[in-house]
Amino acid sequence: MTVSPAQKPIFVLQGPNLNLLGEREPHLYGTTTLAEIHDSLVAQGEAAGVAVECRQSNHEGQLIEWIQEARMASCGLIINAAALTHTSVALSDALAAYPQTIMEVHLSNLWKREAFRHHSYVSPYATGVICGLGAEGYTVAMQALIKRLKP
Amino acid sequence: MTVSPAQKPIFVLQGPNLNLLGEREPHLYGTTTLAEIHDSLVAQGEAAGVAVECRQSNHEGQLIEWIQEARMASCGLIINAAALTHTSVALSDALAAYPQTIMEVHLSNLWKREAFRHHSYVSPYATGVICGLGAEGYTVAMQALIKRLKP
Amino acid sequence: MTVSPAQKPIFVLQGPNLNLLGEREPHLYGTTTLAEIHDSLVAQGEAAGVAVECRQSNHEGQLIEWIQEARMASCGLIINAAALTHTSVALSDALAAYPQTIMEVHLSNLWKREAFRHHSYVSPYATGVICGLGAEGYTVAMQALIKRLKP
Amino acid sequence: MTVSPAQKPIFVLQGPNLNLLGEREPHLYGTTTLAEIHDSLVAQGEAAGVAVECRQSNHEGQLIEWIQEARMASCGLIINAAALTHTSVALSDALAAYPQTIMEVHLSNLWKREAFRHHSYVSPYATGVICGLGAEGYTVAMQALIKRLKP
Amino acid sequence: MTVSPAQKPIFVLQGPNLNLLGEREPHLYGTTTLAEIHDSLVAQGEAAGVAVECRQSNHEGQLIEWIQEARMASCGLIINAAALTHTSVALSDALAAYPQTIMEVHLSNLWKREAFRHHSYVSPYATGVICGLGAEGYTVAMQALIKRLKP
Amino acid sequence: MTVSPAQKPIFVLQGPNLNLLGEREPHLYGTTTLAEIHDSLVAQGEAAGVAVECRQSNHEGQLIEWIQEARMASCGLIINAAALTHTSVALSDALAAYPQTIMEVHLSNLWKREAFRHHSYVSPYATGVICGLGAEGYTVAMQALIKRLKP
Amino acid sequence: MTVSPAQKPIFVLQGPNLNLLGEREPHLYGTTTLAEIHDSLVAQGEAAGVAVECRQSNHEGQLIEWIQEARMASCGLIINAAALTHTSVALSDALAAYPQTIMEVHLSNLWKREAFRHHSYVSPYATGVICGLGAEGYTVAMQALIKRLKP
Amino acid sequence: MTVSPAQKPIFVLQGPNLNLLGEREPHLYGTTTLAEIHDSLVAQGEAAGVAVECRQSNHEGQLIEWIQEARMASCGLIINAAALTHTSVALSDALAAYPQTIMEVHLSNLWKREAFRHHSYVSPYATGVICGLGAEGYTVAMQALIKRLKP
Amino acid sequence: MTVSPAQKPIFVLQGPNLNLLGEREPHLYGTTTLAEIHDSLVAQGEAAGVAVECRQSNHEGQLIEWIQEARMASCGLIINAAALTHTSVALSDALAAYPQTIMEVHLSNLWKREAFRHHSYVSPYATGVICGLGAEGYTVAMQALIKRLKP
Amino acid sequence: MTVSPAQKPIFVLQGPNLNLLGEREPHLYGTTTLAEIHDSLVAQGEAAGVAVECRQSNHEGQLIEWIQEARMASCGLIINAAALTHTSVALSDALAAYPQTIMEVHLSNLWKREAFRHHSYVSPYATGVICGLGAEGYTVAMQALIKRLKP
Amino acid sequence: MTVSPAQKPIFVLQGPNLNLLGEREPHLYGTTTLAEIHDSLVAQGEAAGVAVECRQSNHEGQLIEWIQEARMASCGLIINAAALTHTSVALSDALAAYPQTIMEVHLSNLWKREAFRHHSYVSPYATGVICGLGAEGYTVAMQALIKRLKP
Amino acid sequence: MTVSPAQKPIFVLQGPNLNLLGEREPHLYGTTTLAEIHDSLVAQGEAAGVAVECRQSNHEGQLIEWIQEARMASCGLIINAAALTHTSVALSDALAAYPQTIMEVHLSNLWKREAFRHHSYVSPYATGVICGLGAEGYTVAMQALIKRLKP
Repeated sequence: MTVSPAQKPIFVLQGPNLNLLGEREPHLYGTTTLAEIHDSLVAQGEAAGVAVECRQSNHEGQLIEWIQEARMASCGLIINAAALTHTSVALSDALAAYPQTIMEVHLSNLWKREAFRHHSYVSPYATGVICGLGAEGYTVAMQALIKRLKP
Repeated sequence: MTVSPAQKPIFVLQGPNLNLLGEREPHLYGTTTLAEIHDSLVAQGEAAGVAVECRQSNHEGQLIEWIQEARMASCGLIINAAALTHTSVALSDALAAYPQTIMEVHLSNLWKREAFRHHSYVSPYATGVICGLGAEGYTVAMQALIKRLKP
Repeated sequence: MTVSPAQKPIFVLQGPNLNLLGEREPHLYGTTTLAEIHDSLVAQGEAAGVAVECRQSNHEGQLIEWIQEARMASCGLIINAAALTHTSVALSDALAAYPQTIMEVHLSNLWKREAFRHHSYVSPYATGVICGLGAEGYTVAMQALIKRLKP
Repeated sequence: MTVSPAQKPIFVLQGPNLNLLGEREPHLYGTTTLAEIHDSLVAQGEAAGVAVECRQSNHEGQLIEWIQEARMASCGLIINAAALTHTSVALSDALAAYPQTIMEVHLSNLWKREAFRHHSYVSPYATGVICGLGAEGYTVAMQALIKRLKP
Repeated sequence: MTVSPAQKPIFVLQGPNLNLLGEREPHLYGTTTLAEIHDSLVAQGEAAGVAVECRQSNHEGQLIEWIQEARMASCGLIINAAALTHTSVALSDALAAYPQTIMEVHLSNLWKREAFRHHSYVSPYATGVICGLGAEGYTVAMQALIKRLKP
Repeated sequence: MTVSPAQKPIFVLQGPNLNLLGEREPHLYGTTTLAEIHDSLVAQGEAAGVAVECRQSNHEGQLIEWIQEARMASCGLIINAAALTHTSVALSDALAAYPQTIMEVHLSNLWKREAFRHHSYVSPYATGVICGLGAEGYTVAMQALIKRLKP
Repeated sequence: MTVSPAQKPIFVLQGPNLNLLGEREPHLYGTTTLAEIHDSLVAQGEAAGVAVECRQSNHEGQLIEWIQEARMASCGLIINAAALTHTSVALSDALAAYPQTIMEVHLSNLWKREAFRHHSYVSPYATGVICGLGAEGYTVAMQALIKRLKP
Repeated sequence: MTVSPAQKPIFVLQGPNLNLLGEREPHLYGTTTLAEIHDSLVAQGEAAGVAVECRQSNHEGQLIEWIQEARMASCGLIINAAALTHTSVALSDALAAYPQTIMEVHLSNLWKREAFRHHSYVSPYATGVICGLGAEGYTVAMQALIKRLKP
Repeated sequence: MTVSPAQKPIFVLQGPNLNLLGEREPHLYGTTTLAEIHDSLVAQGEAAGVAVECRQSNHEGQLIEWIQEARMASCGLIINAAALTHTSVALSDALAAYPQTIMEVHLSNLWKREAFRHHSYVSPYATGVICGLGAEGYTVAMQALIKRLKP
Repeated sequence: MTVSPAQKPIFVLQGPNLNLLGEREPHLYGTTTLAEIHDSLVAQGEAAGVAVECRQSNHEGQLIEWIQEARMASCGLIINAAALTHTSVALSDALAAYPQTIMEVHLSNLWKREAFRHHSYVSPYATGVICGLGAEGYTVAMQALIKRLKP
Repeated sequence: MTVSPAQKPIFVLQGPNLNLLGEREPHLYGTTTLAEIHDSLVAQGEAAGVAVECRQSNHEGQLIEWIQEARMASCGLIINAAALTHTSVALSDALAAYPQTIMEVHLSNLWKREAFRHHSYVSPYATGVICGLGAEGYTVAMQALIKRLKP
Repeated sequence: MTVSPAQKPIFVLQGPNLNLLGEREPHLYGTTTLAEIHDSLVAQGEAAGVAVECRQSNHEGQLIEWIQEARMASCGLIINAAALTHTSVALSDALAAYPQTIMEVHLSNLWKREAFRHHSYVSPYATGVICGLGAEGYTVAMQALIKRLKP
């Protein structure tokens, strides 16, 4: 299937320290790099006829602006806000203003970690939350998101 | 692909009130019935060459005994403990003794609901946690579990 | 007045340890037995032309299934969930799916007892809550329920 | 039955804002006015041969003084302390010194409302607590109180 | 502009200890007296063609009754509930039944003071909350209220 | 020693339910009446050449106004705010504006009672706090206050 | 010593997952099986002339009913409620109605484990609590219970 | 009145997501855009003879640097820190070092929203706090700030 | 009056750092030394015909042993446990075993100080608690204790 | 069996106020004295061929030093830290450095007492915890400790 | 000693508002400027034969990226995260992935300041924490870090 | 440099269990003994011309008395209160009365340990707090203290 030029892309937004993926604490996050994940998501999108735009930032402000940009420029959003999940009301406010479906992904199972990772400011605005499946979590989120794209 | 008779089945265990699925509060849980979900999971397993054994109970004790039975009789576990997720240490203890991969599913996004649903006694023993995807959550969990089956 | 055969009965469901009524801690719960209470409720219903179905269980799962059964089979519900009032989200979820009027009864005044008895998972789904009136609490609940029966 | 002149009356005390009954937030409190409730309670008392003295105040101090007066001048007390239920230790202290039976009534089911309405300073001194039955709650309380009058 | 006789007045209600204004702790509350504030508000109203009725009480019950009176007799409400802001559910219930716009004023910046002053039972029912501007806070509230008067 | 006419009196202010003293819960508060305590305090003042003005109210607002009056009209203050000790910020604010010495008295030892009686809004503004000595607590407070009177 | 037929037996009740003893997490619970423990307790009872009735259930409701049965049918009770220790008010209520001596046993030292295992609903009704001694804890409890049997 | 060139401007700083004003959740924030608000504030300043410099950022770090710049470059500060109000100690530290008057504005009434919006790290350093007046809140803050400008 | 040789003495026990009295933080504790206080208490006792034994220790264990000694050797106890008031359960347990009247004294008003000084392990075992009166607090306690000596 | 001279003794350490045993609050602690308990433990040790060294102190520091001494000088430790159980991190740190088996004993069932007795700083370092068996608790602890002595 | 070109430098990272050092609140932070501190650290490094790279940012994202850069480019890290210490999980996650020694410095003694400054997300990943020594804290940290450099 | 006889010494006070240093839990506290640390500190002081007096105690009371002695007899204080850091208000009160500079040292990084070690009663009275540097922490503290000695 080819990607339709009229169709807006899916945005995949990655939070702080995810650029270290594959290097940082592999027992928690696996050895796949972020680039590999992004390549795989673009391919998955292509197969479904939808473009996929992947970005990572360590800056809360940048992530907020990408979510704002996504309001007009995307047809759906996959987000792993990493540590900001637990602390950022500003990011949460940006998501509250996003009109399409949001999928939230976490590589590790947050419930096996510190108590402050059990709270999420992102989840109330997500349709689905997938955690603990490692890199596969993104595939699953993409697949679920594509099913829910508004024609 | 055919189901190998030597392969132990995947157990799918459903907690209290999930037998009402499709009837109870459809805005939260969707209109698909539990039987439909189970049929679909069996078919998905069959396609992958693994039997799927689906059970539901409103009794904590029954669920514990099925988890105990699963220790020897299954190759993996998908569980939606429903309300017991938030209150049952006994169920959690049974899961702690389960030696294979566990996938946890919730139909609704628990983060949009009451605060007492934000705590889970199940998640610390699960590999992956999927919530908010409705009936599709089981498909996703099954797919992720099958990938992780030990040969 | 005679009980109309077309009319569904009122269900009266009693939680754990209430079968000991009349024996256990009479300073808290009085000396009337559960059978006497049930006889009296059946008589009260008969006078109002409605059948009354009384059951007690020490099993959370059983109570949940009776509430589920009551969804189709009853015209109203009186429940004293006893200790499960304070701990059972599963029972609470079953009540959330019950479409008719619910009356909650407690024999003792929970406010004179341990702090963990001041929280209720049942009350948010009840129309009325009556506590501290002993066995008479059921009579009062029955009377209030009958007034609210949908024709 | 006639009201015996020797018999002290039952006091019915109503807390802040209950004078607005029938006007204020009818979805919570119903459309019956306080005067109608009081008339009905007087009639109910008369039928049982006991006078009923109904009063309402928006002043904590006034309510305390009526409870103090009731110590000598009444044979039983029905109280709906409204918002003071949740905040007034002073009112609670007055009730602690009241020697006869106390019945507590709330029109709405407090458990469906804000968390600060789940605590009561009144209930530890009440025999029975009835909430969520609307105006009928008073009838029920009166009926239960009359049964407990000391000869 | 003249005050129209047909127009209901704005009520300005002042809580406990505000009669001491200008004397009590001037470093917190300034040296302007309550009378001066009220004169100024009446003048401000007159300029806008609306009467202003200013009252102060140290009695919670009196304030509740003035709020109740204001339901029919006023076109808008400015309230500084002073210490009752932090403790009075009864006052809050009265405000909940008030159908016009409410403006809340505090002379001092409550956030620079004790933690128990950071909670408000009044604010959930106010349109605007102005604190820390001293006597000028009332002018600002009046100006904002007048803009919102329903014709 | 005679009471000097030029000397302002000491105010003794008593909170809610203290008018019941001698009747209410004598195991907590003793059998001495409030009138007896007041007579004794007046005599004690007279012996020291200072007038003593004793008042009791069940109304928070009245107590606040007496404290305000005391600002100009008294040379010192003894207060037993009873239940309001634990709940009234408004009373506390009035005391904060009182320029002379304040002595706080409680008849019973609050530390042997409910946890909500362990917090005081009055004590931060008192010089001394005396509790558990019964009626003698006032004598002690008076004696300590007289020693601290500003000439 | 022979077991007297007239003497009621001691009940030994075991909670959820204890049937896995010897298999589940041996570093926490040891390698002795529940059957071995029960055989040993029966022998210990026999030596003391008292019958011992050992039962295990994963069902809260079943355990409650056995405690109720024990009220008439036993002369003492040893209970390891396992995970229900920390969550079951219903079980606690059943124990409150048990008239003979109760001994509570835990195999592991709960204080070395999760915080939610530091709270017990069982202990307030037990005479003695023994934890951390593994299977030997039952022997010790039996020995202490036998000493306290009422003739 | 003309703006004096010697006079430093007032800074108006806007936090995350306020650039969406007029688009995002208009039921909470109104339909006026940020540009309209800024134009209006510049005009208001001009009328008072003071320049107004308006900036918005989604970056905490940028806002901190603008506050630092404002230390030398401005005569007063109006800030709506939006979501950072509730989470940013770093922004709060920057404000603590600002030597002129600070006015805090919130468009919506935070007290009608989630509990985490009831805490503010900004308010302790503000002179006045105005919330719930929508875009008018800025006008009011500007007016109050201009009155307090040091000559 | 002479001290009767048959009469056991009153013990006055002083906790940690009170030996610094008159030197340490005189704005909190005054300039009177502990020796002066003790001399004055002995004189006060002598006047009443009772010996007074005064001791100070910085050692919790020593204070416990003096309280134990006091069980047989004293007729009453005055204690200022200083910092141990807030932390020592061991001292509290010793006081629980003391059979005569206990008076508790604190020099400063603890309510004007850190929150951890608002909790007391001593007060539940004291008859009276006097704080904030400085050295005079001991005189008052002695006077109240002497009145309560058992003949 | 004779005590081997080569074998190091078991230390039995008793915390504050246990020297009062048999006198203090016999309804909680029984009537056996500490000397009787110690005699009995020595005899029990002797029968098992191990010396027993029993000591009691009201001084935290002394107990710490005995635990330190025990590191080299003992083959096992029985401790009842009494009130220090709930408050002493220093004692807990000493136990953390003790290399042999520790048994913890409490005479009363702490779960029937104040909430602050439900926390233990000792238990995390103990093998077994025995409470509520009165003096017999020591016998049981000794017996369990002897079984675990390293040859 | 000369700085070896093969040796990677030590990174010194400074958080928000530290660029104001010497100007902002000198009673808390002293009058030394950040440039002076950095010059001094470079000189100290030079003397020890190690380069020192000093950077400050008010942007969380920038600090995270510098820590990520430091993973490969530095031999040790000194960090004063300022306000982010208390709020930034993202920064904490970056530090968790840093493989060399980390020293944490705070200029002021955080324990003398607001309670929210008593929590640190940085400290769990630091080897040493030095606070309250002002600018000297960096010297001390540098000296301790140099001692721990891996050859 | 020689130690001047006129100069008072620096006191180094060590809390409970520090006498075990080098033996106890070397992974937390290192292998250096306390004697070695003290020798090194004396040498460091000598080099700076100041005597150093080192003491350790397991007794809170002894430590308090040494702090009191230090008020007159020392020119500065280094303290590692060990476990008492977290529990002793009495020790904290003694430090509050110490007029010279205090340096606080902890060998381990308390932030990597139990939550109860994150609170300190000592730190509010210390100038500097150094933790996690092992024995070197004392050297650093000494060096910083010597710099701050008042001539």
